[in-house]
Amino acid sequence: VSRNKLEELAPVFYPRSHVVIGASANPRKFGGRFLGALLSFGYQGKLYAVNPQESQILGLETYPRVVDIPEPVDSASIAVPARFVPEVVEECLAKGIKAVQILSAGFSEASEEGERLEREVVEIAAKGIRVIGPNCFGVYCPAGGLTILPGERLPKESGPVAFISQSGGYAIRVPRRAGGWGIKFSKVVSYGNACDINECDLLEYLAQDPDTKIITAYIEGVKDGPRFSKLLQKVCQTKPVILWKGGLTPGGARAVYSHTASLGGEEVTWDAAFKQSGAIRVNSLEELLDTTLAFVHLPPLRGRKVCVVSGGGGIGVTAADACERAGLSVPLFPVGLQDKLRSIVPPAGGSVRNPVDVGSPFPPPAMLGAVLETVLTDGDVDMVIIDELELARISGITQDRAQQSTDPEERPAQIPVEVKLRFGKPIIMVLPVEATESDAIEFESARRKLSDYYLENGIPVYLTLERAARALANCLGYYQRRDVISSSK
Amino acid sequence: VSRNKLEELAPVFYPRSHVVIGASANPRKFGGRFLGALLSFGYQGKLYAVNPQESQILGLETYPRVVDIPEPVDSASIAVPARFVPEVVEECLAKGIKAVQILSAGFSEASEEGERLEREVVEIAAKGIRVIGPNCFGVYCPAGGLTILPGERLPKESGPVAFISQSGGYAIRVPRRAGGWGIKFSKVVSYGNACDINECDLLEYLAQDPDTKIITAYIEGVKDGPRFSKLLQKVCQTKPVILWKGGLTPGGARAVYSHTASLGGEEVTWDAAFKQSGAIRVNSLEELLDTTLAFVHLPPLRGRKVCVVSGGGGIGVTAADACERAGLSVPLFPVGLQDKLRSIVPPAGGSVRNPVDVGSPFPPPAMLGAVLETVLTDGDVDMVIIDELELARISGITQDRAQQSTDPEERPAQIPVEVKLRFGKPIIMVLPVEATESDAIEFESARRKLSDYYLENGIPVYLTLERAARALANCLGYYQRRDVISSSK
Repeated sequence: VSRNKLEELAPVFYPRSHVVIGASANPRKFGGRFLGALLSFGYQGKLYAVNPQESQILGLETYPRVVDIPEPVDSASIAVPARFVPEVVEECLAKGIKAVQILSAGFSEASEEGERLEREVVEIAAKGIRVIGPNCFGVYCPAGGLTILPGERLPKESGPVAFISQSGGYAIRVPRRAGGWGIKFSKVVSYGNACDINECDLLEYLAQDPDTKIITAYIEGVKDGPRFSKLLQKVCQTKPVILWKGGLTPGGARAVYSHTASLGGEEVTWDAAFKQSGAIRVNSLEELLDTTLAFVHLPPLRGRKVCVVSGGGGIGVTAADACERAGLSVPLFPVGLQDKLRSIVPPAGGSVRNPVDVGSPFPPPAMLGAVLETVLTDGDVDMVIIDELELARISGITQDRAQQSTDPEERPAQIPVEVKLRFGKPIIMVLPVEATESDAIEFESARRKLSDYYLENGIPVYLTLERAARALANCLGYYQRRDVISSSK
Repeated sequence: VSRNKLEELAPVFYPRSHVVIGASANPRKFGGRFLGALLSFGYQGKLYAVNPQESQILGLETYPRVVDIPEPVDSASIAVPARFVPEVVEECLAKGIKAVQILSAGFSEASEEGERLEREVVEIAAKGIRVIGPNCFGVYCPAGGLTILPGERLPKESGPVAFISQSGGYAIRVPRRAGGWGIKFSKVVSYGNACDINECDLLEYLAQDPDTKIITAYIEGVKDGPRFSKLLQKVCQTKPVILWKGGLTPGGARAVYSHTASLGGEEVTWDAAFKQSGAIRVNSLEELLDTTLAFVHLPPLRGRKVCVVSGGGGIGVTAADACERAGLSVPLFPVGLQDKLRSIVPPAGGSVRNPVDVGSPFPPPAMLGAVLETVLTDGDVDMVIIDELELARISGITQDRAQQSTDPEERPAQIPVEVKLRFGKPIIMVLPVEATESDAIEFESARRKLSDYYLENGIPVYLTLERAARALANCLGYYQRRDVISSSK
């Protein structure tokens, strides 16, 4: 890993000045939508527009060509038709611009002519200008004031997660949907055809980036498999890398070729890359976010033993099945602990063997607190999953009132937070979408508020037990493989 | 299958008169909550209460014992402590009551004493009274005016789906959550410890029940494996059976024993039962409902060839991966069809090979319509999945306006419905929860309304492509296995 990657790619993420080439005031045009997004996101550096037909666009200094701009410029976004792009990049180089992102499509993913144009861009890049794209949506970096297309409403706050994506669609979908998970990003990069800056450059950068703690990626193909594999292994020693590889089925591989002109690679090669590197493999957007959430909130997991606390027997059965299918274990509690729990939970309809069935989805808060404390004091478990208890609905108490109250019976939702603070062990909540009808939207609103409350207090929240179990198993697997790989060196 | 099962269990589902034994006006008591649910659900037959301490409960004729009721009574719900239950069932028998549901817990799932009580109940049942439970939540049958605990707000309309559940928790969760899927039920039975009426009786009944088209089940253990297996095979020849088996992992099996005193059975035995019978195996509540939805809306699927229509390249790649991982196929379109599609979709950023990438999540409605028509006319596919197009958000048109408009450009959401009506081939929508934040709840409200619109028009809607693909593969697998099994006879 080159030590100066941070400096090398600084103009990509933190440009002091930026120009949009192919800018427009028309939000129906590509360059217009991008410029509009950047302006409404609030880029703080000096911003210029280039368009030979306009003298002023959205109040910005507008020039016919980039070389006409009188001051120095750090970076550029290019949104002109593909056939003009090589010439424009050449001009950017002449202007002393250090990095460009080419938003335009119509390159190697589209035709032989496009391939030729892309090769020209690569030749120009080699002379001293870095290129993101082509066929991409750009960079979202809240600390640098940059956003991707169409990311005008993405959060302005940074967070510990980076996401690099060969797909522009996922580059916007992942940070947009992450809102409900409470996940914030240091950087999101849509890098498209990766003609110059590729997944390896970005991985190296993010490994060094002090603002990034967790690296996530959607990758369709890599340019240099062995280099990528080796680098991935190195990066995984210090930061978890959660990787969604698109195109590992025949249909998916064909779509990859149409999309980013990448060769998808064989499933068996990727299996080996995951195994050797210790990277975490996910297969959907939801699994990517679910797994990221576990890393954001939980300390390094060291064991697979789960206590499940449920409010019903069947829920406990299927929770245990889901945990054990995912590779976690739900160990039988020793007799002494069972006896202690038996003195707390109701005799009929409950179970104390693990899963612990507290007898109803609406347990009295003090009883729930006592169960959690007893398990965390005496139970040899690595984490506790609280499955589908309706804490917000007990006694009809709303979240706002629950947070203010000092009476434990009036703040059931707070119990898991208090216990987590006292014991420091991972507590995970499963809060399903219980009322799914379109005329029951107020329940979903309440659920999301309760979810926010737990997320703000460092408790990961999942929509189903199955998803929680998979995310936790992914997280645990990373730490276990990392230890094995580092001890085998 | 005995031909008189419908008659035999009629008092369970359609009692002309019913008595709640252990009734109470106090909703915090079990019998009180149940009676309250039944009253507010609106049972239409003659209803009595039994409680030796009260002379009148919630306006009902109340008697000290069931034998004191002057008129004949068809069925009873029993909510007295376990130790009194055998005596009460004996009295019901004496009174001429034909069926009881024992809601009380504390039987074979709890202790040796409970086991003894349950054996007593079985002996009384053998004398001529049928028993549901004990340790159950009862029966929901909208056509019979019955609801389970706590199902006072479940829909009063019947539908084609039956659900039998050894778990009371799932007996209420499944119909409650099914609202968002637009799924309605003929019967839901929480049958608990199954001391008399068991999964085989219910399966036989539902196979004959003209109101039930699709049978779903959550089962922890069966009383008579060979009988169940043989019966399952027979029933699957006429109606799909979607079966969620709890307790197939060691932790789950242990929880099963605590919960309903069932022996879970070996995974290998169940694998064989699924294979030989052609029943559909699911592993979560979501998969159960997703799969049911495919059966509710789609004609029998005969092939696995899918056309995916997406609004972005990466979405298409991962959609193809998800389809092929689930066992569906996304075949490459022949050159002639590709050429036709190429004249419709935008040249840059689109793909016509299948998945078809229409270039943006906001395609012009006329273009989307032309793509669908071309694919359904010339494409050799069994179904079309429309993946994450933001039809409701195009031009900011709301659903209500979209339905009224006659201008195709103003009714993008209608295009899939119109095409489905014209071609009759399965069209499936994927409508993800795009805005997940608690302060973006209005988007979820709009999404649910759009989802309702498609469901009302016979188009199944899924939250993710992965879930759609699994449900469709489950559905297809049923028809394929059914054909193989019936032709091998």
